[in-house]
Amino acid sequence: MRAIEKIKCIVSYDGTRYKGFQRQQDVITIQGEIERALATIHKKSVTIHASGRTDAGVHAVGQVFHFESFLNLPVERWQMAINSLLPKDIHIRRVEKVDPSFHARYSAKAKEYRYYINRGEYQPLKENYCYQRRSPVALVVDRMKQAIKLFEGTHDFLPFTVKNEVENTVRTIYRADLIEHGDFLELIFIGSGFLRCQVRVMVGTLIEIGEGLRDESSVLRLFEGKEEVAGRTAPPQGLYLYRVFYDDVDTVLG
Amino acid sequence: MRAIEKIKCIVSYDGTRYKGFQRQQDVITIQGEIERALATIHKKSVTIHASGRTDAGVHAVGQVFHFESFLNLPVERWQMAINSLLPKDIHIRRVEKVDPSFHARYSAKAKEYRYYINRGEYQPLKENYCYQRRSPVALVVDRMKQAIKLFEGTHDFLPFTVKNEVENTVRTIYRADLIEHGDFLELIFIGSGFLRCQVRVMVGTLIEIGEGLRDESSVLRLFEGKEEVAGRTAPPQGLYLYRVFYDDVDTVLG
Repeated sequence: MRAIEKIKCIVSYDGTRYKGFQRQQDVITIQGEIERALATIHKKSVTIHASGRTDAGVHAVGQVFHFESFLNLPVERWQMAINSLLPKDIHIRRVEKVDPSFHARYSAKAKEYRYYINRGEYQPLKENYCYQRRSPVALVVDRMKQAIKLFEGTHDFLPFTVKNEVENTVRTIYRADLIEHGDFLELIFIGSGFLRCQVRVMVGTLIEIGEGLRDESSVLRLFEGKEEVAGRTAPPQGLYLYRVFYDDVDTVLG
Repeated sequence: MRAIEKIKCIVSYDGTRYKGFQRQQDVITIQGEIERALATIHKKSVTIHASGRTDAGVHAVGQVFHFESFLNLPVERWQMAINSLLPKDIHIRRVEKVDPSFHARYSAKAKEYRYYINRGEYQPLKENYCYQRRSPVALVVDRMKQAIKLFEGTHDFLPFTVKNEVENTVRTIYRADLIEHGDFLELIFIGSGFLRCQVRVMVGTLIEIGEGLRDESSVLRLFEGKEEVAGRTAPPQGLYLYRVFYDDVDTVLG
């Protein structure tokens, strides 16, 4: 009898065509496509476990999942075999054999998300890959840069989630930064974990701050329960799950 | 009776979904979508005239077309009206009223095309937006940089076209450059005009030079008729019609 091995994969995908990560009946999802490829290879159904879900239209540069297999293939063979059965908009970047104690979700120490906003002229070529603001109101980026720093630290992020499903809504954000690349704004969040839609609600709140609809301290008042409604949820196509960290947080932040 | 005006438009589009620029029966094309929008506005069919065609999958940052209209709308109204009727992957960037003698094709003094190659890890998020080389053979970029300069000047580009349709195949390339952006190579061509598939065949030839399948002087031998077969046509999704120039060439090149 061959040994069961645990396989960790780093996957990048273009979320445009998919109804999110999680397997669902009758619609195409990232998990569904990957499990279909693995079922073909194993000639039986295989379940994958990801670091977490991503919503419909959200992209990934470095999502992580694991699965168990009795096939004992070398890692390069795994990568080629899975990729050859996946559509072109999902790509396994790396395969690694890991300790049986590894779990893509429970072993994760931190996650990095990035969000892209085009504040300039509408670009049809970027339609599915960033949030294109079509508002005549210009964003005051300096206010957003100040406000984004208020997310750093350990807070109860309940005001910044949608359809919350968990009891403990306290999370830590290790780094929150806004970088300007011409007309494009790149917002980077590295945190212990993120609640449902948390990044998109934080981004939506920052946009309203940039628009002057809120002042910077709105973030603090939301944390303190002195203000109730955070910003509107920013659209999914600007969001990228950039990386999942399994090392200690100090290593993560260098 | 209202006067007939000539309207010039600069349009950007994501060519992924389209069977090219030119109107065709039963398939979606860029021209078809724009003419459909204009027909709705005019309540009768309107023909547009572009600077030239682009093939299926080819993108445009600054394609130009013109049409005639008796509606006498201000230019901002034109832009809003057409864009509101276009799909999100086609966007009119600018509208201008022009002299009756203007013709998007015949008045063009030069065109700029850009081509993008990803020579690094396959990126599923860039699948439709660049040529992703999946070869284990690394590109020697310095050889490509030398060779691309050989395209500059006035030459008979017959060896660098596919299914040629014109009698005079002499064209002038004013500028040909290769710029490295990390894993991405950007190839820029500004010329008096381009034959069918010319940019893609030039790029394909440069790739074979970078791969070591040809030496740099292969470009010269093709021009001189001493070598017959140019490189394979590079795929369409890496190609962007970047700009059409209507000013004098000296102004174009600064």
